[in-house]
Amino acid sequence: LAEKVICFGELLLRLTAPGRELLLQSGRLDVHVGGAEANVAVGLARLGHGTAMVSRVPANALGDAATGALRRFGVDTGGVGIGEGRMGLYFLSPGAGLRPSDIVYDREGSAFALAGPDAWNWEALLDGADLLHLSGITPALGPRSAEAAKAAAAAAKARGVAISFDGNYRAQLWNKWDSDPAAILKELVGQADILFGNHRDISLLLGREFSGDGPERRREAAEAAFGAFPGLKLIASTARHVTDADTHRISARLDGREGWAQTEERVVAGIVDRIGAGDAFAAGILHGMLNGHDLNRTVHAGLALTCLKHSLPGDASLFAERDIEAFLAGELDVRR
Amino acid sequence: LAEKVICFGELLLRLTAPGRELLLQSGRLDVHVGGAEANVAVGLARLGHGTAMVSRVPANALGDAATGALRRFGVDTGGVGIGEGRMGLYFLSPGAGLRPSDIVYDREGSAFALAGPDAWNWEALLDGADLLHLSGITPALGPRSAEAAKAAAAAAKARGVAISFDGNYRAQLWNKWDSDPAAILKELVGQADILFGNHRDISLLLGREFSGDGPERRREAAEAAFGAFPGLKLIASTARHVTDADTHRISARLDGREGWAQTEERVVAGIVDRIGAGDAFAAGILHGMLNGHDLNRTVHAGLALTCLKHSLPGDASLFAERDIEAFLAGELDVRR
Amino acid sequence: LAEKVICFGELLLRLTAPGRELLLQSGRLDVHVGGAEANVAVGLARLGHGTAMVSRVPANALGDAATGALRRFGVDTGGVGIGEGRMGLYFLSPGAGLRPSDIVYDREGSAFALAGPDAWNWEALLDGADLLHLSGITPALGPRSAEAAKAAAAAAKARGVAISFDGNYRAQLWNKWDSDPAAILKELVGQADILFGNHRDISLLLGREFSGDGPERRREAAEAAFGAFPGLKLIASTARHVTDADTHRISARLDGREGWAQTEERVVAGIVDRIGAGDAFAAGILHGMLNGHDLNRTVHAGLALTCLKHSLPGDASLFAERDIEAFLAGELDVRR
Amino acid sequence: LAEKVICFGELLLRLTAPGRELLLQSGRLDVHVGGAEANVAVGLARLGHGTAMVSRVPANALGDAATGALRRFGVDTGGVGIGEGRMGLYFLSPGAGLRPSDIVYDREGSAFALAGPDAWNWEALLDGADLLHLSGITPALGPRSAEAAKAAAAAAKARGVAISFDGNYRAQLWNKWDSDPAAILKELVGQADILFGNHRDISLLLGREFSGDGPERRREAAEAAFGAFPGLKLIASTARHVTDADTHRISARLDGREGWAQTEERVVAGIVDRIGAGDAFAAGILHGMLNGHDLNRTVHAGLALTCLKHSLPGDASLFAERDIEAFLAGELDVRR
Amino acid sequence: LAEKVICFGELLLRLTAPGRELLLQSGRLDVHVGGAEANVAVGLARLGHGTAMVSRVPANALGDAATGALRRFGVDTGGVGIGEGRMGLYFLSPGAGLRPSDIVYDREGSAFALAGPDAWNWEALLDGADLLHLSGITPALGPRSAEAAKAAAAAAKARGVAISFDGNYRAQLWNKWDSDPAAILKELVGQADILFGNHRDISLLLGREFSGDGPERRREAAEAAFGAFPGLKLIASTARHVTDADTHRISARLDGREGWAQTEERVVAGIVDRIGAGDAFAAGILHGMLNGHDLNRTVHAGLALTCLKHSLPGDASLFAERDIEAFLAGELDVRR
Amino acid sequence: LAEKVICFGELLLRLTAPGRELLLQSGRLDVHVGGAEANVAVGLARLGHGTAMVSRVPANALGDAATGALRRFGVDTGGVGIGEGRMGLYFLSPGAGLRPSDIVYDREGSAFALAGPDAWNWEALLDGADLLHLSGITPALGPRSAEAAKAAAAAAKARGVAISFDGNYRAQLWNKWDSDPAAILKELVGQADILFGNHRDISLLLGREFSGDGPERRREAAEAAFGAFPGLKLIASTARHVTDADTHRISARLDGREGWAQTEERVVAGIVDRIGAGDAFAAGILHGMLNGHDLNRTVHAGLALTCLKHSLPGDASLFAERDIEAFLAGELDVRR
Repeated sequence: LAEKVICFGELLLRLTAPGRELLLQSGRLDVHVGGAEANVAVGLARLGHGTAMVSRVPANALGDAATGALRRFGVDTGGVGIGEGRMGLYFLSPGAGLRPSDIVYDREGSAFALAGPDAWNWEALLDGADLLHLSGITPALGPRSAEAAKAAAAAAKARGVAISFDGNYRAQLWNKWDSDPAAILKELVGQADILFGNHRDISLLLGREFSGDGPERRREAAEAAFGAFPGLKLIASTARHVTDADTHRISARLDGREGWAQTEERVVAGIVDRIGAGDAFAAGILHGMLNGHDLNRTVHAGLALTCLKHSLPGDASLFAERDIEAFLAGELDVRR
Repeated sequence: LAEKVICFGELLLRLTAPGRELLLQSGRLDVHVGGAEANVAVGLARLGHGTAMVSRVPANALGDAATGALRRFGVDTGGVGIGEGRMGLYFLSPGAGLRPSDIVYDREGSAFALAGPDAWNWEALLDGADLLHLSGITPALGPRSAEAAKAAAAAAKARGVAISFDGNYRAQLWNKWDSDPAAILKELVGQADILFGNHRDISLLLGREFSGDGPERRREAAEAAFGAFPGLKLIASTARHVTDADTHRISARLDGREGWAQTEERVVAGIVDRIGAGDAFAAGILHGMLNGHDLNRTVHAGLALTCLKHSLPGDASLFAERDIEAFLAGELDVRR
Repeated sequence: LAEKVICFGELLLRLTAPGRELLLQSGRLDVHVGGAEANVAVGLARLGHGTAMVSRVPANALGDAATGALRRFGVDTGGVGIGEGRMGLYFLSPGAGLRPSDIVYDREGSAFALAGPDAWNWEALLDGADLLHLSGITPALGPRSAEAAKAAAAAAKARGVAISFDGNYRAQLWNKWDSDPAAILKELVGQADILFGNHRDISLLLGREFSGDGPERRREAAEAAFGAFPGLKLIASTARHVTDADTHRISARLDGREGWAQTEERVVAGIVDRIGAGDAFAAGILHGMLNGHDLNRTVHAGLALTCLKHSLPGDASLFAERDIEAFLAGELDVRR
Repeated sequence: LAEKVICFGELLLRLTAPGRELLLQSGRLDVHVGGAEANVAVGLARLGHGTAMVSRVPANALGDAATGALRRFGVDTGGVGIGEGRMGLYFLSPGAGLRPSDIVYDREGSAFALAGPDAWNWEALLDGADLLHLSGITPALGPRSAEAAKAAAAAAKARGVAISFDGNYRAQLWNKWDSDPAAILKELVGQADILFGNHRDISLLLGREFSGDGPERRREAAEAAFGAFPGLKLIASTARHVTDADTHRISARLDGREGWAQTEERVVAGIVDRIGAGDAFAAGILHGMLNGHDLNRTVHAGLALTCLKHSLPGDASLFAERDIEAFLAGELDVRR
Repeated sequence: LAEKVICFGELLLRLTAPGRELLLQSGRLDVHVGGAEANVAVGLARLGHGTAMVSRVPANALGDAATGALRRFGVDTGGVGIGEGRMGLYFLSPGAGLRPSDIVYDREGSAFALAGPDAWNWEALLDGADLLHLSGITPALGPRSAEAAKAAAAAAKARGVAISFDGNYRAQLWNKWDSDPAAILKELVGQADILFGNHRDISLLLGREFSGDGPERRREAAEAAFGAFPGLKLIASTARHVTDADTHRISARLDGREGWAQTEERVVAGIVDRIGAGDAFAAGILHGMLNGHDLNRTVHAGLALTCLKHSLPGDASLFAERDIEAFLAGELDVRR
Repeated sequence: LAEKVICFGELLLRLTAPGRELLLQSGRLDVHVGGAEANVAVGLARLGHGTAMVSRVPANALGDAATGALRRFGVDTGGVGIGEGRMGLYFLSPGAGLRPSDIVYDREGSAFALAGPDAWNWEALLDGADLLHLSGITPALGPRSAEAAKAAAAAAKARGVAISFDGNYRAQLWNKWDSDPAAILKELVGQADILFGNHRDISLLLGREFSGDGPERRREAAEAAFGAFPGLKLIASTARHVTDADTHRISARLDGREGWAQTEERVVAGIVDRIGAGDAFAAGILHGMLNGHDLNRTVHAGLALTCLKHSLPGDASLFAERDIEAFLAGELDVRR
């Protein structure tokens, strides 16, 4: 188990229509804390790792609630500062059957997005850290956030702290400002030890396509990435086929420089909440990596956590090691 | 888009057991407005058409709520009068798995059923109307309602307003009084431009069976109906196979005098609320027809809306054009 | 009853902690539509007046819900445009006992605030209007909104439409930009026929204090306002004493140029929701004024509606004329 | 404790707006079983008496729920038959502050109202009974129900079973048909051993007014009633002053032929649910009477139960003897 | 229909996380009454049989609620005594998708477990009884409960009352004390007329394995049991395959001495609540047996009730005969 | 602000009937974490103090939820161990009007109660601590807990850590075992620096009565306590008068050796949740004491926090310094 994994990114509150209703069909909302990096922090904390969130929220009941929710699940929030700006929000109508889930983002002007690279004292925050986890959402939020992401990665690199980077490419965010996503992302991936992303993410980074399909294409893309980014040690990705909003099929893959591991495809039916499944996957992979497990065991932990996440309301995986084990052992009936 | 589609029929309040419970298993009920014709009105209004409801409710909080619910979704309720009688109710235990949904009707003595043919000033109501939509439920409610339905259809016919008629055959209602459903329905269908009904509805109207099965039988029945009702231009129907309360398979068909269009069958799994799916189909078909789309595009809009309706609590389709497009484009994962 | 009262202002969604909890103490929120001017529109519509809202919302489920909520209660929303920007929000922890209610505003960057004076076609909107109702919140939102408020008032004045103005002074909003509230408010009040405000509002406008206390001070302030604003015909205000969050005492006053009317003080205990009580008062006063009632009857309608509003969840008065009559008749036990 | 108290009357379902909302303000309803006589049955059963309900409900989930709710609280429902007709309903908006509670009745055509005097086998039902409790609601429902009430009373009288009659005068019900309430009620009260009613009820029965006020007027009326109805042994009544929907003041009185007992007035603040308070009073009085307690102890049990009922959601008193004792002992802080 | 079926066992309250959440993920719990034998009692009562529960609960609101819940559904609770000890509880996180349901038991020190064999007067309780139903949970609770179970069975045997025994083997309970489960269970099964259990239960009783698989193994085990227990007339069991928490496949089998009946396998998808499915099966089998139906009709009633139970929140089957018929007739779409 | 305040005691989950219902009147429960000492920990943490809980919970979802709830509000839970036993529970029916709140305790066999004095490593836990807070509940739980309380106090005393002791005398707990409460409590109070308790608590400790009433009696008792316990520096108490479940009057008092401070009496109306008010008082007093405030400022902070607590669902005060200030400044209307 890690002593201290730092997750850096925006905290969001998710406001969800209950009971498979459309947003505000009736006047009720359920609130969960979210944000890609925060979900990883919670997921790892529940697996027993020491985790710490670095972010910024406004000085009001919303910021307070978001921070408290992380603390509840064991995440250290000493690095969550208070600053000018709003609480980032998003509104979700969960899908059902042939109706997809629908998200209305309302994150502009957030305290996190308004903070610049100097908002955090990385020297102190990184002290004793095992890993820094970042995602491609932070640099997409605007030039100040892009600088902040680069500053965080540079500080980690300088102190020899390993870096995990989840691509999470969001075109709409990048399109809102005069951005050069490929350049910025390349700089960040260039410092990473582990990358979460599939062949499409790598195409974007390297400006080339990968032909073929399935595992072969993924391996080809991985090898190209390993060539382009000498510090990169692992590339993790999932493949998802969507039957309808309630049933997906998912497999997971983990590429190392020397080899790879690929899981079977699992049918995930009866989906309760699909949001955060990618973050749960990241938590599962990092769990294996931090524990020094091999590629195969690690990729199955990632598959387990992403599959299990679909069964749970809220953005974050709340599962423990025993849940991963039960999943891998095929335990599906009532546990008494 | 139409300027004014008039939907004439009874407004109902639906009182539903929450959380897949049986009725009053715990002491809570969720309330939605319903009624077959009102569902069509809401469905069309959400697609951008001008729609107006013509009905009658009691002068109390229940009638007020039903009327307000239609207004909320953009339906003009100037034609919803106030009169003696109760608010029509029905109670629903939504099915689950191998347990079917169960309805307890409580609509006797409603303000709508007590109103006779003179309760509405059709001359004023039909002014500027593109279409009048009726269903076979209204004439089944009793002799006064049968007269009211005939008066509405006659007034529309006299003013050259197109008529849409949804069979909605309800034997229990017809059986409660000394009725001749075939005669009354024939008179109404005889004035209709579009009929919602399958071969069984046509058998009832024409007093003959159609052999064979599937599309052929449907075409044979449609041609018989076109022969019997010279004013009829379109016949629309769905075919539904029920695996269990959570999973159905649905296809749609639209017959014109010159040709037809038939969709593939879609699996509708993870059903949230099956009530009103036929009304959503009618709204989708009328949407295509009012927009002048061809048979194929129109029948797919009908299929889209009926499939999507199963994903939504409440009786009415609340979907917009963009939802139909997403459905037809196969978009099933989270829309951000 | 008026044919058409236009209310111009921002639409807000209020997200409220349920069950007297603090905000996000548990993860649920109840949503109501709000906004001072929208509350007046709903209040008047429920009393039978033709009312129309003029505002702007974003093209998403939030804007759609806010507009639909007004329509539900009978407000014409043809003048609610769609535009760039967010939906204005505010979060409420309702008070209890000795704990005051607490509001977190989150309205910056709203579609309404971003709209400038040219966002609405006032010529068309004011056609056939009896009255335009504005409040001091709109000009406080920023320079563009201040221009928009002035443009609306000028257009009404030019067409001979009477103007109602509710002071609603919000120092925090004015302080956020380089504003001159007294100058802007004076210009707006200078065009108004009726002003909602007490001696403190008038002090702010005229730059002078009023000594004494109670009704005398209010009369002195009213006479000063009548002197300064020759077009002003009526000044309406309430006086509120707060025992605790559950119990207030309220009296109402209406000053004309020739005379005044002043109600007794009513104890309002068991407060359910205090938000929007001022807007309910405005609706009650406008109701009397639009019906041509005398000062005394009018001020009692205002008192009735503001007192009754405290008993109702949500921002707007939903009461009918019969509720005002029952209040004034002292009916307090179960109505069967 | 009694072996068998029979309560005869209509069972109703009450559908209540939650959270002090107006009816259907949001689309949720809470359901409780009610009906004046059923409330007495539940109240007595919870105090330990053997009680049995005699009524009639429809053969559907609503009738089943109403019957089950009585059984849950210990009432024997063997005498609740199944018959044609609807389930009687009523809808409640609970009041708050200066807004009174509002009821919409929807009980016409109920299975109970449609049943005539032959619907029950009184010989079997009354076997072993200590008391038959009736109210003035049953005969008001229509001529068939009036006959049914008379038949029940006559059968009890014939078998020497004591009769309790609660006036519960409902003008709206009597006005719906060609009725002679005074004559019918006199016949029923003429067979009663105990009457629940105040001087106004007695005025109606005897066709005369009682002057003076307070206890004196009540005694004068009681003595007149004792004179007119030789079989009458006890007359019980409450006096209620309504400050607002949340605060009432209540006192209770019990007149015997030889003497009387009168309680002090209690302030009942923080009212949760005022419906059924009269029925709780009746249960408290009958409890004392069936236990052979003296007038003073009996009237205080009645006061206790009626005051306590205001604290409880639902129509019926659910209190036990120890709650009455705690009330009379003034225990008001947390019981651990 | 039976006059009196006695179910003897512990009453439990089940506290369930709502909305597919983990336990206490948000701070709400839904409460149902449970306990294997109580579920059978409710299931039979809803099918029209006279049933009576024999148990013991504490003298507080929890015990009262559990008892009332049984009464509501028609179970006689005169045999539910009051005694020292707690109310037995269990907490449930219902599973979803690939996450299994999870139970936290909290039943130690319950009033039922503390009661010894002398806590009930079996002579009186068994008077007029058709059947006594027991399960293997009661003797597993501890030595006093094991004695109580044996005393109940012996008393029934002595009076010629048939005995039904549901294996319900719970290793955790037996492991908590110095127990000899096989010996105790053999004594109880030796007195039973019908046994609910499959080849694994029989292996445990007889100390031998059964090879092969499917129906053959079940028949072999049944014949071995019939050989070992001369009084045994019927052995009933289900076979369940778990796809995920939402979808199971179930078949049922009933072995008599002369023959057997075996159902097809049904897919039970969209599972709402899997708890109590075995008890529903027992109720269905006992229903057929008490009605004198043949093996085939009886086993299909068992299959119907166990399949239907999965669609219902709460522990007990609430279905009526008409629901069994609709299931066997394949009615799956809305019943109007 | 303190660096580290340690609160030692049992963690409980409170299961509360919602909506002023009786326990399990409908089948829902709201869950909050409680326990007298935990409430103090949360109260102090929300005021900005470093706080740490020392307790023991079972290794299941209930223990996990209790611990997480403390963490959410900023309490360090590193000292909350895992052990054999149950989670302590209690069930609450909140009172209303003239019906008192009612508690059913279900805490026997809890993991905390089963732990003995060696369950915690006090040397490590007390490292760097400013204060240890204990209450009279822990020693009342049984002989092992009494030993644990004494061990904690002795360890604090040995390390020079100040001790705060809240009397919280619970006769029912002491009566369950062969206890000598006065002796044990005297030993603990003898080591305390601050005692929460009134003249009745002191009477119990010293075995003598104090005559007179009001502040004089309290001073006399305080002086007696200061005489008997030389280490005691402060004695804090409240006086409460209960009008009904919704309205109490409260004053606070703080006695030092040299002087005292006494507040006015405040009317606390509209009570939402009275549980934990004493713990909130303790938190307020400790807040002042830890900040070095004078007696008067300290006692008013205690009064503020106890009054405010009544407005909040749940057991613990969640208020910040600004809420105390607003209370003392008399701010009662909406804070925007």
